[in-house]
Amino acid sequence: MVRDFVGEMTTMGGTVLVTGAGMDMSLLAPLRGRGLLVPSKPIQPLTEEELIRGLRGAVAYVHGGEEQATAEALRSARETLKVVAFLGVGYENFVDVTAADDLGIVVTSTPRAATESVVELTIGQIINANRNIGRHIGDRYPYWRGPEELPHELSSRTVGIVGLGANGTRIAEILRAFRVDVAYFSRTRRRDVEERLGLSFLPLLELAERSDILVVMVPCTAETRSMVGVEVLKRLRPGAVLINTARPAVVDPDALYEVMSDKRVGTAVFDGFYDRNSRVAAKLLKTFGDRLLVTGHIASHTREAMDRMVLQAVGSIENVLSTGADEHAVGKHGGNS
Amino acid sequence: MVRDFVGEMTTMGGTVLVTGAGMDMSLLAPLRGRGLLVPSKPIQPLTEEELIRGLRGAVAYVHGGEEQATAEALRSARETLKVVAFLGVGYENFVDVTAADDLGIVVTSTPRAATESVVELTIGQIINANRNIGRHIGDRYPYWRGPEELPHELSSRTVGIVGLGANGTRIAEILRAFRVDVAYFSRTRRRDVEERLGLSFLPLLELAERSDILVVMVPCTAETRSMVGVEVLKRLRPGAVLINTARPAVVDPDALYEVMSDKRVGTAVFDGFYDRNSRVAAKLLKTFGDRLLVTGHIASHTREAMDRMVLQAVGSIENVLSTGADEHAVGKHGGNS
Repeated sequence: MVRDFVGEMTTMGGTVLVTGAGMDMSLLAPLRGRGLLVPSKPIQPLTEEELIRGLRGAVAYVHGGEEQATAEALRSARETLKVVAFLGVGYENFVDVTAADDLGIVVTSTPRAATESVVELTIGQIINANRNIGRHIGDRYPYWRGPEELPHELSSRTVGIVGLGANGTRIAEILRAFRVDVAYFSRTRRRDVEERLGLSFLPLLELAERSDILVVMVPCTAETRSMVGVEVLKRLRPGAVLINTARPAVVDPDALYEVMSDKRVGTAVFDGFYDRNSRVAAKLLKTFGDRLLVTGHIASHTREAMDRMVLQAVGSIENVLSTGADEHAVGKHGGNS
Repeated sequence: MVRDFVGEMTTMGGTVLVTGAGMDMSLLAPLRGRGLLVPSKPIQPLTEEELIRGLRGAVAYVHGGEEQATAEALRSARETLKVVAFLGVGYENFVDVTAADDLGIVVTSTPRAATESVVELTIGQIINANRNIGRHIGDRYPYWRGPEELPHELSSRTVGIVGLGANGTRIAEILRAFRVDVAYFSRTRRRDVEERLGLSFLPLLELAERSDILVVMVPCTAETRSMVGVEVLKRLRPGAVLINTARPAVVDPDALYEVMSDKRVGTAVFDGFYDRNSRVAAKLLKTFGDRLLVTGHIASHTREAMDRMVLQAVGSIENVLSTGADEHAVGKHGGNS
C-alpha cells in the first residue's frame, strides 16, 4: 500500500515548499528519495501572494519562516498540498489550522525539539535585562552615579513564570541553579515540579505582584492572547523586567506601552515582535529604545534545534504522505483535539 | 585598650579615602562612629597624583576603583594610613601589597562577597557570545544565509574552565544545569567537585583542545599572568569563544590578537580590559569590533555584592584599627603568606 502511494507521489512530480532561513537542506534528502522536488534553499515569503506562488504544485510545505499560512493561501494549493510541517511549537500564530482541517491538509509541529535553545536564549536575556549588560559593552570603566544605579543580583530577585510547560519547567530548573526565588502560574498546577524544584504556585495577579522579573512562556492561543494585559502588568513591582520569548501577542501591546511609559516595567524582552504594520508596535520601538530588547524570533535557531526540527518535520511529512496521519499532527488530526 | 585606641584615632582626625563608584556610603557609618571623616561620595582617581592627593590624612582607604595603589602613593600616606580595604578579590592587580607590607599598612580583601554577581554576568556573557545575541537586537526577522551561520546550542558545547575556585565551581554548577559538558584545569585538583558535578580534569593544553568555550577564572598573580598565551589559545577549536571575566592580564594580549586574526578565537569576552595606554589593547578593540565584548569591570557591581563588600571592608577596617589584624588581611598579614 505504502509503496503504491509513494509511486503516486512520484508521478505527481510534487514539490516541497520550504520557508525560513538557516536549515540544512541535506536533511530533506529522504523526501527527494520519494520523488518529491526539494529546493536547494529555503525561501522567505512575507506576503500572501509570495506564499501562494511558492505553494504552486507543492505536496508538502515545511513552514520555518515568519509568513502567515492563511486560509486563502492553503486553499490555493488544495489540489496538491497534503501536509504543512511547522518547524516549532507556536503553529497557531502562523498556520490557519481550522482552514487546513477543512481542506483536509494535515498540520504538524515539532514539540520539544527546541526546548534547550529557547531556554538558553531566555536565561541569557533575563541576565541581559537584569544587569543591563548592553549599556556597558565597550566601556573601559563603570560609570555609576550612585548605588541606586547598580543592578540587583539575580539571586536576590523573585522570578514569576507564566506557563510551566517543557520550556517553563526548564527555565525554573536553571533559575533555581542560580538560587533564584521562583514562583509560577500555570493552567495546570504541577505539584511534582513544585516539590522537586521548590517553586510556589500563585494565581496570575498575585504572581505579578511578587515578581521582579516576569517570564511569559505560554503558547499564543485564543485563550492566552493578551493574557498579560494591563491588569497583570500594573501589579508588577516598579521597574520590573518583562521577558516574553514566547509569542508577542500574549502580552497586550497597548498595556505594555502604558506600563513602560510610567516605568512600572523597566525593561521588556521580546523574541519576535508584533505585526510590522501595528502602530503601537512602532510606537513602542520608537519610544523605549534600549529598554526594549527585541530579537527576530531566533530563540529556536541553533543548528542542533533546527536539525531536530527539520528531521522531525521530514518524519512527519513521510508519515502523512504514507498513512495520512502523524503523532505530531495538530488540529483535528491531532491527538488532543 | 580598644577604647583608648579609638580615642587616639578620633584625636588624629583621620579621614577615609573611598574610591570607585556605586557604593552605598551609609554603610560606612560605623567608621564615622569612630570619629573618622568619611566623605559623602566616593571618588575615582585615575592617576597616581590624584590618588596621592586623595590619601592625604587618610587612616583608611577603601579601594573600590580602577586606580593603582602604587608603592609611591602608599609611601606618601605612610604617616597616617593603617589599612587598605580592597573591595573584591583581585587586589594583586590594584594594590602594591609588598610595598604596603614594608610600610606596615595592612591590605584586606572581600572574599566570596561577589561570587554570585560575577558568576551571573559570566554565564550571561557566555550565552551572549555563544548565541551572538547582540547582533540580533533590533531585528524583526532572523537573516541567516545558511545553516553554517546558526549558532550552536550551549548544551552541545564543551566548556573548559581554567580555575576551580569559588567562582569557577559555581560556573560549573550552573553550566551543568544547562546540560553542558564541562571540563576544568586547576592548580589543585578537586575530586569532590568532579564527582558531585560530573566534571573532567584535564591539563591546561588538553583542556584548550577540547573546549568550544574557554572560561578563565583564576586570580591574576605573577604565576598566572599571561598563563593563557599563544600555546594555549592555538589549541582551541576554530571559532572558539574565550571568556575572561577575571583580570585581563591572565590572557596574553599579543597572543589574543594573533588567534583572533586567524579566527581561531571567534569571540572574546572581557570584563575590564588591558591598560588604556597599551597599544595592543587599542589594536584589539579597533580590529575586532563586536567580536570583542568588553565591559568595564562590572561583574561584581550589583547592589547586593557591593553592600556585602563594603560591609566586609568596614569590618576589616575596624578590626585593623582596633587590633592591627583581620581575618581578610592579605600579604604578610594574611593567613596564607
